[in-house]
Amino acid sequence: MIAGRGTEGRDQDEMPDQNRFEKQLDFIGEIDKVKEIYRQTYLVSGSRKENDAEHSWHLAVMAALFSEYAPAGTDMVKVVKMVLIHDLVEIDAGDTYLFDEVGTRDKAERETKAAERIFGILPEDQNREFHEYWREFEDGKTSEAKFALVMDRFQPFYHNWMTRGISWIEHDVKRSQVLSRMEPALKDYPPFYNYMIEKVEEAVKSGWLLPS
Amino acid sequence: MIAGRGTEGRDQDEMPDQNRFEKQLDFIGEIDKVKEIYRQTYLVSGSRKENDAEHSWHLAVMAALFSEYAPAGTDMVKVVKMVLIHDLVEIDAGDTYLFDEVGTRDKAERETKAAERIFGILPEDQNREFHEYWREFEDGKTSEAKFALVMDRFQPFYHNWMTRGISWIEHDVKRSQVLSRMEPALKDYPPFYNYMIEKVEEAVKSGWLLPS
Repeated sequence: MIAGRGTEGRDQDEMPDQNRFEKQLDFIGEIDKVKEIYRQTYLVSGSRKENDAEHSWHLAVMAALFSEYAPAGTDMVKVVKMVLIHDLVEIDAGDTYLFDEVGTRDKAERETKAAERIFGILPEDQNREFHEYWREFEDGKTSEAKFALVMDRFQPFYHNWMTRGISWIEHDVKRSQVLSRMEPALKDYPPFYNYMIEKVEEAVKSGWLLPS
Repeated sequence: MIAGRGTEGRDQDEMPDQNRFEKQLDFIGEIDKVKEIYRQTYLVSGSRKENDAEHSWHLAVMAALFSEYAPAGTDMVKVVKMVLIHDLVEIDAGDTYLFDEVGTRDKAERETKAAERIFGILPEDQNREFHEYWREFEDGKTSEAKFALVMDRFQPFYHNWMTRGISWIEHDVKRSQVLSRMEPALKDYPPFYNYMIEKVEEAVKSGWLLPS
């Protein structure tokens, strides 16, 4: 809900800045909705699925913690900003499960429209700045976007591993599906890649992933 | 739950780095617990209370968005790291409501012990680094700690305002209690301070805060 905000009694000279701050606050209020966009990944405790805000917080801590594994020169500030805002588009477009091939088809179009509306709440300079972080992440070409994607792919993988594959089992996920989504993102990042490969094989042996 | 991790078949030379990565992963798994530490603040939609991970994510986005209001020279990277990890101690120490005077008495001692255990999971250099961010935030003396506190105090205030004071009403919070907690933190940050003062008076008029 958006409570009314009066503008009475303010100096005309203060208006431009006041409007800027109000736009920023509107954005802060709007993005609260990602706390109610639930993903297919469970919390490590297994008690419930996690939401996009929790996921994004976790990625930001990981980016801060794992910066030593990023290529020299990677702008970690940008990586953190990217992971913090990368899922805001799901406020309008919803969460598409990584292995949902039907939902994936019109995902780009839905998310592009969402980005225009949501970042459009911000003052114009910050609309451009944050929209650009999102676009860069989606394009996946820069070292910042690639490292952000490592976090984004590895975190749910780790949760699946830690929860004995609950979400994999629920969705009948196959070993080949995990590898085809994980390998391109992680292959140039040895600690993440090696860990993932080892755990995928253990998950197949444990019956948490289908072997095909 | 912590799934077992084998170390068989690895080269002796790889062990130090592998141990480092495993410690970092253990930390990432451990801190997932803040997603289940609930606060007294409601989501903007009013549907439920929010947890520490969601709150910390929100503060980090705010820090990125509001950096123009921090004093020149403020290290915003440090501010973001501080807000991301400032509530991890609540995994052991629990959330103490801002207006809970009994719970506040032994809060420092409980949180100091928690910080030792939780940051102690990390490799030694990162234990020191993250522990220091937390300590600096708690001490509240640097411009980074002060700006992080502005985010930490303003966000739940904004949620209270947006939800027509649900949490204030639930706890019979008084105008004077809000002002005594908000004014010292916000007074040197005009957009936040002015907004807070204006909304406190409107909240009293609306019956969301007790007038005393």
